[in-house]
Amino acid sequence: MDYFKKSLELHKKKKGKLEIKSKIPLNNKTDLAIVYTPGVAKPCQEIAKNPDNAYEYTIKGNSVAVVTNGTAVLGLGNIGAQAALPVMEGKCLLFKKFANIDAYPICLDTEDNQKIIETVKIIAPGFGGINLEDIKAPDCFDIEKQLTKELDIPVFHDDQHGTAIVVLAALINALKIVKKRVDKIKIIINGSGAAGIATAKILLDYGVKDITLVDSRGAICHNCPELTKPKKEIAKLTNLGKVEGQLKDVIIQSDVFIGLSVPNILKKELVKTMAPLPIIFALANPIPEIMPKQAKQAGAAIIATGRSDFPNQINNVLAFPGIFRGLLDNRAKKATREMKLAAAKTLASLVKNPVPNKIIPSVFEKNIAQKIALSISKCIN
Amino acid sequence: MDYFKKSLELHKKKKGKLEIKSKIPLNNKTDLAIVYTPGVAKPCQEIAKNPDNAYEYTIKGNSVAVVTNGTAVLGLGNIGAQAALPVMEGKCLLFKKFANIDAYPICLDTEDNQKIIETVKIIAPGFGGINLEDIKAPDCFDIEKQLTKELDIPVFHDDQHGTAIVVLAALINALKIVKKRVDKIKIIINGSGAAGIATAKILLDYGVKDITLVDSRGAICHNCPELTKPKKEIAKLTNLGKVEGQLKDVIIQSDVFIGLSVPNILKKELVKTMAPLPIIFALANPIPEIMPKQAKQAGAAIIATGRSDFPNQINNVLAFPGIFRGLLDNRAKKATREMKLAAAKTLASLVKNPVPNKIIPSVFEKNIAQKIALSISKCIN
Repeated sequence: MDYFKKSLELHKKKKGKLEIKSKIPLNNKTDLAIVYTPGVAKPCQEIAKNPDNAYEYTIKGNSVAVVTNGTAVLGLGNIGAQAALPVMEGKCLLFKKFANIDAYPICLDTEDNQKIIETVKIIAPGFGGINLEDIKAPDCFDIEKQLTKELDIPVFHDDQHGTAIVVLAALINALKIVKKRVDKIKIIINGSGAAGIATAKILLDYGVKDITLVDSRGAICHNCPELTKPKKEIAKLTNLGKVEGQLKDVIIQSDVFIGLSVPNILKKELVKTMAPLPIIFALANPIPEIMPKQAKQAGAAIIATGRSDFPNQINNVLAFPGIFRGLLDNRAKKATREMKLAAAKTLASLVKNPVPNKIIPSVFEKNIAQKIALSISKCIN
Repeated sequence: MDYFKKSLELHKKKKGKLEIKSKIPLNNKTDLAIVYTPGVAKPCQEIAKNPDNAYEYTIKGNSVAVVTNGTAVLGLGNIGAQAALPVMEGKCLLFKKFANIDAYPICLDTEDNQKIIETVKIIAPGFGGINLEDIKAPDCFDIEKQLTKELDIPVFHDDQHGTAIVVLAALINALKIVKKRVDKIKIIINGSGAAGIATAKILLDYGVKDITLVDSRGAICHNCPELTKPKKEIAKLTNLGKVEGQLKDVIIQSDVFIGLSVPNILKKELVKTMAPLPIIFALANPIPEIMPKQAKQAGAAIIATGRSDFPNQINNVLAFPGIFRGLLDNRAKKATREMKLAAAKTLASLVKNPVPNKIIPSVFEKNIAQKIALSISKCIN
C-alpha cells in the first residue's frame, strides 16, 4: 500500500484527525445552566480556593499538551510549526487510543528556546503534563531541563526518553537470549542527537559500563573539539577507552550496535568485526542503518528496527502512553529516572519468553500502557 | 434546581467537560502507518511547501483557541487562569454544540499584556481563530488590537463583540415595536467595561447618535479626569451634551437603558424619569440591574436580561458560534465591523414578528449559527 498517498487522501477528506467532544449533555436551558452560567461559577470558585481542585473539576488531570516547534520532525528536519501539525495530531491519537489520555497539539512558531520555555509555562494551567516532541537537539535538552525545574506538572521529551526506554526494554530481552551480562558488554550508539544521548543515559542508569557514541564526525570523546554541551556531558560518562576514529574503527569487538542515525550506514563488513552474537538495533526510519536481511547474513544474532514490517519494532508508542497514564494517575510533578527504568523493565517483562524474533511486545498487544502505568505508580506510592 | 450544586457534582463526576476524539480509525498497523509514520510525512511536506495547505490537511481550519488569563471571569472577577478553566471548557462545548467548531481552552498564567500577545502569536499555527475570553478591561482592548494586527487568523473578544452584537440585534427589534428611529434615540449604557464600550461602538456604527456611558464614578466625558485610554476614546464619540453627573442625572429623558454593570443599580424611580416607552436591557448576571417585574411596574415597554428564566435573554451564544463558523468557512483573516453589523442584523431578522416578550431568538432555536455564518460569508464574497 502507498501509505503516503493514502495518508494525504485521508487527511484531506477528514480535515485532520482530531475533534473535540462533550462529555456532558447540552440539549436545553437546564443543561446550559449547569455546564455554563450560572452553575459553572461553583467549580471555578472551588479551584480559586485551592488550585489542586482543578484536578477534580476540570480536564486538567487527563490533558497533555503535545508541544513542538517543528524543528526536527520525523526524518523531514526543520519544517516549522505549522507543517508539524499532522504529526502532532497523530501523536494525540496515540495518546487517546493507547492510554485514554486527551492530548492536544500545540505548535509553537518560534525557534527561540527562552520563548518556548516561557510559552509552555504560560499555557501550563490547563494541562496535567507536557509532551515535548520533535524539537531539535541540542535545544530540546535545555528546554526540557528548564521546564522540568520550573513547572509543577511532568515534562517528558518523547524523542529522548520514549526511544531510550523502548531500546532498553528490547536490549534487556536481547541480552537474555545471547546470555551476556549488562555490565560486561560494549555498546556503540551511532547518532548523538536527542535519542542517542538519552539512550546512552538510560543504559548507564541500567548498569551498562562501556558505551561509545558516534556522530557524523566520529566517536565523541571528552577531548573532541567543538562539542555541544550535551555531547560534552555525555562524553564524560562514555567512551572509556578514549578512542578516536570513525564507526568502522570503534565498532570492532562491540556487542551491541544501536543506530539512531541515517540509512544504510552500517555495512555488512562492519557487523562482521563485532564480538560474537552481535545485537543490531537499526532504528533509522523508514530506511534502517542496515536492512535485517543483510545484518543476518553478516552474523547478527538479534535484529530490531523502527519498522512495523519487520520483527522487533522499536516504537515509542510502546512507552509514552503508559508513562503519561501513570504520571497523570498519580498527579506526578516530575518524570524521574527511576520511573523511566521501571517502565523499560516492565516493558521487557511483557515478553514472557524472549526469542530472537520477539524481544519486545507488538504495538497492538493489550494493556501495555496499563502495565507501564502501574510500574510508574509503584515508583511514587 | 440548585445549578451550583448540580454543576459541581457533574464536573467532579466527569472530571471536566471536554474530550479529544479521533476522526480516523486506528485499529491496526496499517491504520498506524497512515495516520502516523510513515504516511503522515506526506501532508507535512505539503504544508511545508505551502502553509495554506494546513487548512486542507489538518484541524487548523475548524479549530479555535478559547484564550483567557482569568482576570474577569463571569461575575467572579480575577480568579486566575486555572480557576477559569471550567468556564473556558463550557465555552468550547458551546462552540461545538452550536457551530460544530472544535475549540480548545488555553488558560494563560500571566497578567502581562505583552506576554499574552506574544504567547497567542506563538501558539497560533494550530488554530484557525482566536476567541479571547474573560480578560479584564482595559487590557483586553490592547490585546485584541495588537493580535488582530499581527496575526493572519481572526481574533474576536467575545465579552466585547458577542455582547455588543446581541444587544444591537435585540435593540433593532425593540425599536420596531416602540416605533422609534435609531438616529433619534438617546441611550444610556451603564457600565463602561469591555462590553459597555464595544456596545457603544457597534451602536454608533449602526447609526445611533446619542449615547452616554456611565461608570462607577458617573457619566464619562471627554474632559473627565483619569480616564483609561479606551474610555477616553469612546468619550470623544459619545456624551454629546457633555453632561456630568451620576446615572440618575443622565438617565432623564433617555429612550434606552443598557446595563452591563452591577445588580439592582437601576431603581424604579429612575425608570420613571425616562422618555415614553423606555427600553430596559438589564444584563448584569445573575442578578440584573433591575428585576423585570419592577421595570415593568415603572413603565418599561420592553425588558431584556441575561437570564434564561425571563423572556428576551441577551446571550452571547446567539452570536459567537455563527460568527466563528462564518470566519472559519471563509478562512477570514479578520473579524470586521461590517461582519459584526451583519451578524446583528441577521440575528434580529430571525424574529419574524417582534413583540415585547420576543425581541431576540431563543438560544436553542435551530440554525441560528448557520444563518449568522452565511451573513459573514456575504461580507467576504
